[in-house]
Amino acid sequence: MTQYPIIHINGQVSQHISVLDRGFAYGDGFFETCRVYNNKIHLWDLHLKRILNTAKQLLIPIEKDLLENQIQHILQKNNLEHAVLKIQITRGETSRGYSFPENLLPNYILFLSETSHLDIPSWLGGVTVGICNIRLSSNPTLAGLKHLNRLENVLARAELKSESSEGLLLDQQNNLIEGTMSNLFLVKDNTLVTPDLTAAGVCGVMREAIMTIYAVQLNIPVIQKKLTLDDMGEAEEIFLCNSLIGIWPVKKCVREKTSVFALGEVTRKLQVELIRHVTS
Amino acid sequence: MTQYPIIHINGQVSQHISVLDRGFAYGDGFFETCRVYNNKIHLWDLHLKRILNTAKQLLIPIEKDLLENQIQHILQKNNLEHAVLKIQITRGETSRGYSFPENLLPNYILFLSETSHLDIPSWLGGVTVGICNIRLSSNPTLAGLKHLNRLENVLARAELKSESSEGLLLDQQNNLIEGTMSNLFLVKDNTLVTPDLTAAGVCGVMREAIMTIYAVQLNIPVIQKKLTLDDMGEAEEIFLCNSLIGIWPVKKCVREKTSVFALGEVTRKLQVELIRHVTS
Repeated sequence: MTQYPIIHINGQVSQHISVLDRGFAYGDGFFETCRVYNNKIHLWDLHLKRILNTAKQLLIPIEKDLLENQIQHILQKNNLEHAVLKIQITRGETSRGYSFPENLLPNYILFLSETSHLDIPSWLGGVTVGICNIRLSSNPTLAGLKHLNRLENVLARAELKSESSEGLLLDQQNNLIEGTMSNLFLVKDNTLVTPDLTAAGVCGVMREAIMTIYAVQLNIPVIQKKLTLDDMGEAEEIFLCNSLIGIWPVKKCVREKTSVFALGEVTRKLQVELIRHVTS
Repeated sequence: MTQYPIIHINGQVSQHISVLDRGFAYGDGFFETCRVYNNKIHLWDLHLKRILNTAKQLLIPIEKDLLENQIQHILQKNNLEHAVLKIQITRGETSRGYSFPENLLPNYILFLSETSHLDIPSWLGGVTVGICNIRLSSNPTLAGLKHLNRLENVLARAELKSESSEGLLLDQQNNLIEGTMSNLFLVKDNTLVTPDLTAAGVCGVMREAIMTIYAVQLNIPVIQKKLTLDDMGEAEEIFLCNSLIGIWPVKKCVREKTSVFALGEVTRKLQVELIRHVTS
């Protein structure tokens, strides 16, 4: 299994980009990380919806058909059973300075890596999480988007001790927002509760799938609201999700006072629904 | 005069970097923009101090001597009278994911461009500024640093109308912070007042030079405090600064009600002190 990904830049096999690319200069772009099963992107409709929305918010004029053609090309050429496809789109290349011309051509970079099956021990046994010291900043203009300005996530990840699979992040006002690379759900009274992400955090595609597909199939209500660490203490079940890991139950949260959580029925049902959706 | 910069990557002439570089992936790095007069970097001590501080805050283990050797190399090789040197340092290259190994080697990218003299019409006549709609986010961990997560600046710059040379930015709490590419000073009662940047904004090197060198030489007191747009209305003079533009008086601020400001004596004295410092 190769660790080094297969990389296409604007449809060509390549690994290098101009240092004048604005993704490199200013984090001026966004990305999307997708699971590929049997050479097909799982939840592509939701990924594409997020790509188009993010491009619009960031004023990056992407070409949908061009992107989809490039994706089909890299998938068909490599024909992988279990893979991760990272799609990175930047505003393009300019000289120094924050301003950019309207007609700038974006750069499309695709990274395709073989990967293993879902992580069964974490799925079944749950994971331990910590609480990060660094706080997320709030900005309604950028909130929800998976843009390339990810220093907070990088520094949060660097804080994590080896015992923890993931770190939870609060914003500057003590709201619980997400994990460094995942979204968070609590289960309470057979209802899913997930942090409101209108001011901070990333609206992940697996979060969206859980809210709009899996929970709907299972008739489980979902609420988005402001949450704090205290809400975790009152939760019956807690789980993390993203497009790559799927759904990980949280079994333990390491704080001053370590909390232990049950691996509960609602999380299990959602995991089964996700697997059913992948294999159907 | 060439518009395309001379670029060295890790001491070698090159224009391309791996798309696995974390600067490209996550904005995981920082930069510094310096004015070069007669082949020498103006205010290098302050630039270096900021580079070392930023590297420390971002946990990027840079090698000072290596960096200074690379800078000397590009300057001596090209011997330019008026130039801009952009120094960009990234955490280095890794596979996908926010985590990074401790021993990762940073990438050092230098961009050297010929440039014109200081912009005399703006120095003498002052500039018009607007107020940006996008708000800066607050994060004490990243505040002050010139890191590569600059999407807010990019989107702020895109808002600017052609009549304005610069846009002013507020944070989410209505504090006046800075310009899209400059720092801001108000003059009131012969005292310089500049926004407190402990939660948002970039602590620019020219701001630092004004506070710790030029104002000191001129016996002008400096205060850093929280400011709002109302404070601008009460200011006797207003000016912007950065390492490239030097000091630009603000003559007009375009809002619902346009304000006009005097091009005052304190700003003039600081401009003269800056020129004296460059030529001494």
